[in-house]
Amino acid sequence: MTLPVLVTTVAELRRALEPWRGQDKQKNGIALVPTMGALHDGHLALVAAARERIPHVAVSIFVNPTQFAPYEDFNSYPRTLEADREKLARAGVSLIFAPFAREMYPDGFATTVSVKGPGIGLETDFRPHFFDGVATIVAKLLIAAAPDTAMFGEKDYQQLLVIRRLVQDLSLPVEIVAVPIAREADGLAMSSRNAYLAPAQRQVAGQLNRVMQDVITRLARGTGVVEALAFGTAALKEAGFDGVDYVALRDAETLAPLAAMQKPARLLVAARIGKTRLIDNMAV
Amino acid sequence: MTLPVLVTTVAELRRALEPWRGQDKQKNGIALVPTMGALHDGHLALVAAARERIPHVAVSIFVNPTQFAPYEDFNSYPRTLEADREKLARAGVSLIFAPFAREMYPDGFATTVSVKGPGIGLETDFRPHFFDGVATIVAKLLIAAAPDTAMFGEKDYQQLLVIRRLVQDLSLPVEIVAVPIAREADGLAMSSRNAYLAPAQRQVAGQLNRVMQDVITRLARGTGVVEALAFGTAALKEAGFDGVDYVALRDAETLAPLAAMQKPARLLVAARIGKTRLIDNMAV
Repeated sequence: MTLPVLVTTVAELRRALEPWRGQDKQKNGIALVPTMGALHDGHLALVAAARERIPHVAVSIFVNPTQFAPYEDFNSYPRTLEADREKLARAGVSLIFAPFAREMYPDGFATTVSVKGPGIGLETDFRPHFFDGVATIVAKLLIAAAPDTAMFGEKDYQQLLVIRRLVQDLSLPVEIVAVPIAREADGLAMSSRNAYLAPAQRQVAGQLNRVMQDVITRLARGTGVVEALAFGTAALKEAGFDGVDYVALRDAETLAPLAAMQKPARLLVAARIGKTRLIDNMAV
Repeated sequence: MTLPVLVTTVAELRRALEPWRGQDKQKNGIALVPTMGALHDGHLALVAAARERIPHVAVSIFVNPTQFAPYEDFNSYPRTLEADREKLARAGVSLIFAPFAREMYPDGFATTVSVKGPGIGLETDFRPHFFDGVATIVAKLLIAAAPDTAMFGEKDYQQLLVIRRLVQDLSLPVEIVAVPIAREADGLAMSSRNAYLAPAQRQVAGQLNRVMQDVITRLARGTGVVEALAFGTAALKEAGFDGVDYVALRDAETLAPLAAMQKPARLLVAARIGKTRLIDNMAV
């Protein structure tokens, strides 16, 4: 098995990508799949979706310090570069960009990219600097790699909308492709953070998607939005979640709050089990 | 005289620039000169410096609303597109990008690029959102035009350092070239805002550069920094300036304040005559 080429600097990345650029859409074209590593089948679904569309797929692996708050899990976030590289080899990826923090944030780094609009509320209420960290690093990755297409999972739905907004606002010449959530057999959205869950916690986590489906069923039957969301919060606590950050119904495109059911809408949830925070979302 | 092609959208700009890209450095290569129009000889010095280096020069003309505070002169800022286009034709410029505000800030625009570091203090103390506006629009222009080189005047010295930092931090693939300040016969730095000055005010304005030279002479003779700067402030008021925002000695590369004279340093001044605010700076 040939392992993908691993580059660690922006200059090397640009040199490695250069031969893949050009007008011939059959032979040329670059898709970027930005990740924080600890790859699971959800990431591999992003890679597979990229390979269906674009001849060449590059994956970035960077655990971005600026999107973690001091009290969050930056230090314990799983780092599995050897295994990631083998998975990506089997998935047909030929280039990995795995920079050190110094490369992305050199001495004197002073720039922040912020996106309001879809970046207001929900995750921002609980992780105030999260999207600034995401938008800054994604802008930098998209500028560095200058891909034709970049793949993002719907798992991080608010992040997806923040990145769409960012790309439109800065005129970044890239198509953003959203890939549906990959789920375990019981419906739990795949996440690198699921590895933190002890077996009993993992059982609780499996209830998250079932509760969301129950909320959507109630909305479909005509239950009011406030009542349906309150049911969701109560059902999660009953299922064993230690805390519910939000159960929210939002406009699927702008993330504006919805007082009454209207389509297209999105149900978004964040809830905690012990120290582990899970997020999920579904189309309504 | 053939007027430069005028394009108003990012898509048109990219199409127009495409033929100028390529590996052959003799024939290809794009320099961007970002301006707010109302062109004077200072702008034309930027164009001339660009033409010396790079085969093709594009000039952007955009009075960027987000870098003006509500109480500032956005509405009255001079707009002279016809005359600008003729000046650029004579200067050998073949492309002008003059977008409408809607093109740069479409509905729902929500992104801000901020640069701390060199963007802290001096201008920021008096125009808190100025560099956010500048960094956001310059990032967007550099992404849209993707030039090999972009020219900025040393007249806006803090802005120049903010942009250098921005380009380095986001890995924008462009070389930033600084062009020395163009001055009138009496030393007044050329500025579109000089047009606001009544004849008597214009006389006062001509003292700004002389006072700066006096401050530098004193520093060279061993006068302490605090004393020399205080002399500068007093001398400006005596010369007829209505207010002095700052007379500051800074590290020329980082803009860090300097308590004692050390090179390379930069003397930076902002002072007001009536409603007109003038800035200037000199190497020390």
